[in-house]
Amino acid sequence: MPQYQAPVEDIQFILHDWLKVTDLYRQLGQHESADKDLVNAIIEESAKFAETQLSPINHSGDQTGCHFSEGQVTCPQGFKEAYKNYCDAGWASLRFSPEYGGQGLPPSVAVAAAEMNAAANTSWSMYPGLTHGVVSALSTHGSKPLKQRYLPNLIQGRWTGTMCLTEAHCGSDLGLLKTKAVANDDDSYAITGSKIFISAGEHDLSDNIIHLVLARLPDAPKGTKGISLFVVPKILDDNAASPNNGLASDNQVTCGSIEHKMGIKASATCVINFEQSTGYLVGDINNGLSCMFTMMNSARLATGIQGYAIADLSRSASLDYAKERLQMRSLTGPKAPDQAADPIIVHPDVKRMLLSQKALIEGCRGLAYYVATLLDRAKFGDDSDGKIEKRLSLLTPICKAFMSEAGFESANHAVQLLGGHGYISESEVEQQVRDSRITMIYEGTNGIQALDLLGRKILRDNGATLAEWIADIQKLATEQSDSTLFGTIAKDLNKLCSDWLQLTQSIGASAQKNADEVGAAAFDYLMYSGYISVAYILLQMAIAAQQNSSNERLKTSKMQVLNFYHQKILPRTKTHKALILAGNKSLDCVDFEL
Amino acid sequence: MPQYQAPVEDIQFILHDWLKVTDLYRQLGQHESADKDLVNAIIEESAKFAETQLSPINHSGDQTGCHFSEGQVTCPQGFKEAYKNYCDAGWASLRFSPEYGGQGLPPSVAVAAAEMNAAANTSWSMYPGLTHGVVSALSTHGSKPLKQRYLPNLIQGRWTGTMCLTEAHCGSDLGLLKTKAVANDDDSYAITGSKIFISAGEHDLSDNIIHLVLARLPDAPKGTKGISLFVVPKILDDNAASPNNGLASDNQVTCGSIEHKMGIKASATCVINFEQSTGYLVGDINNGLSCMFTMMNSARLATGIQGYAIADLSRSASLDYAKERLQMRSLTGPKAPDQAADPIIVHPDVKRMLLSQKALIEGCRGLAYYVATLLDRAKFGDDSDGKIEKRLSLLTPICKAFMSEAGFESANHAVQLLGGHGYISESEVEQQVRDSRITMIYEGTNGIQALDLLGRKILRDNGATLAEWIADIQKLATEQSDSTLFGTIAKDLNKLCSDWLQLTQSIGASAQKNADEVGAAAFDYLMYSGYISVAYILLQMAIAAQQNSSNERLKTSKMQVLNFYHQKILPRTKTHKALILAGNKSLDCVDFEL
Repeated sequence: MPQYQAPVEDIQFILHDWLKVTDLYRQLGQHESADKDLVNAIIEESAKFAETQLSPINHSGDQTGCHFSEGQVTCPQGFKEAYKNYCDAGWASLRFSPEYGGQGLPPSVAVAAAEMNAAANTSWSMYPGLTHGVVSALSTHGSKPLKQRYLPNLIQGRWTGTMCLTEAHCGSDLGLLKTKAVANDDDSYAITGSKIFISAGEHDLSDNIIHLVLARLPDAPKGTKGISLFVVPKILDDNAASPNNGLASDNQVTCGSIEHKMGIKASATCVINFEQSTGYLVGDINNGLSCMFTMMNSARLATGIQGYAIADLSRSASLDYAKERLQMRSLTGPKAPDQAADPIIVHPDVKRMLLSQKALIEGCRGLAYYVATLLDRAKFGDDSDGKIEKRLSLLTPICKAFMSEAGFESANHAVQLLGGHGYISESEVEQQVRDSRITMIYEGTNGIQALDLLGRKILRDNGATLAEWIADIQKLATEQSDSTLFGTIAKDLNKLCSDWLQLTQSIGASAQKNADEVGAAAFDYLMYSGYISVAYILLQMAIAAQQNSSNERLKTSKMQVLNFYHQKILPRTKTHKALILAGNKSLDCVDFEL
Repeated sequence: MPQYQAPVEDIQFILHDWLKVTDLYRQLGQHESADKDLVNAIIEESAKFAETQLSPINHSGDQTGCHFSEGQVTCPQGFKEAYKNYCDAGWASLRFSPEYGGQGLPPSVAVAAAEMNAAANTSWSMYPGLTHGVVSALSTHGSKPLKQRYLPNLIQGRWTGTMCLTEAHCGSDLGLLKTKAVANDDDSYAITGSKIFISAGEHDLSDNIIHLVLARLPDAPKGTKGISLFVVPKILDDNAASPNNGLASDNQVTCGSIEHKMGIKASATCVINFEQSTGYLVGDINNGLSCMFTMMNSARLATGIQGYAIADLSRSASLDYAKERLQMRSLTGPKAPDQAADPIIVHPDVKRMLLSQKALIEGCRGLAYYVATLLDRAKFGDDSDGKIEKRLSLLTPICKAFMSEAGFESANHAVQLLGGHGYISESEVEQQVRDSRITMIYEGTNGIQALDLLGRKILRDNGATLAEWIADIQKLATEQSDSTLFGTIAKDLNKLCSDWLQLTQSIGASAQKNADEVGAAAFDYLMYSGYISVAYILLQMAIAAQQNSSNERLKTSKMQVLNFYHQKILPRTKTHKALILAGNKSLDCVDFEL
């Protein structure tokens, strides 16, 4: 049922009328590669690709899943062809360096394409998505020969990539990993170990698969400081044209099995075994984890985007259903007197769910694209004082966790809106609940994100980076406090920001006495921060619509979304505040043996 | 992974130490059929049945699902045998009238068995569950000959039943239904129409299937006042031993297909077609909907129980995992220094999720059993002033909606606690997310429950029934306000009750001006009511544990759960209150064409 309708108008509004990305690209010296016409053409063509090539194979992919047999993985019907078309059209190389065959477009443009692919077919989007992560890591940390050897084929999409971090006994705590790397006589290493949950670990879309593997040298220190990063190709022979000719990998990289999962069933989640496989060191010895972490910002942002994008797919289906499904009369009297009943959209509780979807998705989208412009600045601009990197690192865990929570909530609203029909596979909206559920878990569970935000990103720098973010919000809120349209929400936002600072200080103080107070507050603190940050984004978008858009429909819509969010979503901060203040006491005294 | 561990101790504590059901049964003249030893024996044997016969075929049932071929439905392996054992052991007849072969036990005892069956294997439990609904409806509204003809076999479990309400174009709004009933020359009717979403509509567990069908006579008034209820057996010949001999039903009742669903995959959800099928009127002509509604209280309570029971299955799995999974160190220093890392249960955010599960599930269980004792009183006692029925009707939508929401939340915590492993089918906890999702939808969506609570159950009687419930809560809270153990929560509860009354009055006043204010407030109002009601239940249970139990472990546990709920769950009322007060404004002005 949900035929994807890409939010082209909203994305163009965000990039041009609000974020004014082409001005930014000009400042950053990227004007030639990304002018307004080109940006719009990319968005429109990417929308078309997602709508016509990816969306039609989304539900069938879920129903079929990946097929595993004798070490080989077959993707669902249509996946290989769509991937070939994607590469042929040049989508794979959008954001990467021209030095290795990429098109060098700013991250914010690439994010638009990534959102639409993830919405239309999130399982499919995992294959190129993982490759992007590998290209980023190799570009930043790989030696020149490694880059020359691997990047061109990865950037073209002829090869795909994976990130091999997790092992059966370690996910969040990579310090425990056991995969071994032993130096060979040449510049290579012999990698031995078993990795699990490897997305795109084996499949039939590309000619070779390039694994980035975390492993430990024999004399490495224990824990996270003894982990190194290696690139381990499935096929060593660079000229191999087709690895799926029935032969085992010549590098002793084998797929042991694939997982049967709640969702993203067409994304192959593999056990990958390395047996004395040849690998090459990326970056410095024992510095593997920090090499992986440099790409975490974009990978975690991508996961957050996936969260709300998946929900956006079911949003349009549920809106259509709410307009068409006739059931009962409005409490204020018939609205469709010529019909047997009114469409369910007349009921306030139905509107509540539809508007929650819309406000959360549009708010998350705005936050994602704002953060993408920070990636633009970090990549092409001057960040000598590190402020952009710091803001990115502050907002990344919020994006990952808040957006995935919001996405799951919104996907659930769609099922609820369709009632019994929503629970039936045929309606396809239940798939989005299952697909979006993983975004709260992978790339670091939302609990880990919350600890990262509060512990590492805020308390460790005494709230300095947070204070700058809040100062920006309060600046706008103060400017708008007398505005007829925005005054009420601006004042509330100002007050919430003051509370936010106070709450942060209060957690900081109690954490001095008991470090567990950080863990006890973290999840609610992250959600609290997310709701306020998204309020700021929605306020900015509503102002930009009033000031810069000639589209009356969009102006009204952005105003309505802002008002709804202010009235019906933002008050969730009240509970989160109370739960933060409740602290660790009622958790700490509990005996789980009882 | 989740091998069901039935909460025998908690159920026995609730029934005996808190609710003192055997005293109640004595008052109600049911002492002989249900003394303490018998009640305990039933709980323990029922636990054994659920743990050993139902739990082992829960995950395999989900993986296999039901099989449909040429009108016949085959249940997953083991279902038929378990059902036969269930009937042979006499579980099917537990709660029903001895007049027709039942054991006449009070509903509160039967609820314990129902909870455990639903937890261990919710799909399987649908088959006897639906039958119970049919027995209730026939017992209350059927003529003597109909009862004599159908009840004995239904009560023994030799036949099963269904409720055929929904049609493709009507679910919540049954007034729109089109299935026709035309009087035959004898006392029967010819029923023609197509029903969808019929749980247990066709299967291979029983010798015959007795459908209760809502249909419309040719001259019936439009809408809900023109619906009559009919009993339509699949096989007319009462002596038919096996309808699954490959022959079509001799009553032209056919199963057109079964649905592929998000969860409860081993419960057959059927399209059932009636083609001039012979049916018999139950109750008065055009009074079918109210006949169905008399059984709604217990059916909706059962759905709520299903919600938290399903979550209880994954709760023990996630607690075990949290104790065993080693990952990172506690922020306050190593807790398992001899291990490579600490078990994740040391982390406050993990405790938060575990305690949320425990508090929500135990609170819901307490509420469910309290409501079950109201069913006991309504069934066996004197309710001439209608107060018990009124309280039941007040608490029923809260049970159905709040418990199903709490169950879904808790089931999701289990997946989150297991991280990536939770997303894998093999871990089985993702099944509970999918299984529990339906409880928020069927038996009336939670949005419908919310309207029922606020509109029909509260505003329509000017809050009189609510006021009595609140008076009970405030009475206890006042009594306990100086207590060392309970004083703080008692005072907060008292204050919340005053707010509750005020909020209700405020909605009533605004609804006078605009009926949509009811719809705009309803969902948050229901959840608000649920959180306060469950706080009252948990307070009563903690007091009962202190006063009546000799089990020190349980005393401490109930106190810890109460404190956690007070600190970390009850503050959710703050947001719900704010959202209620925000009213309909931000919903009403929205144009969904934008």
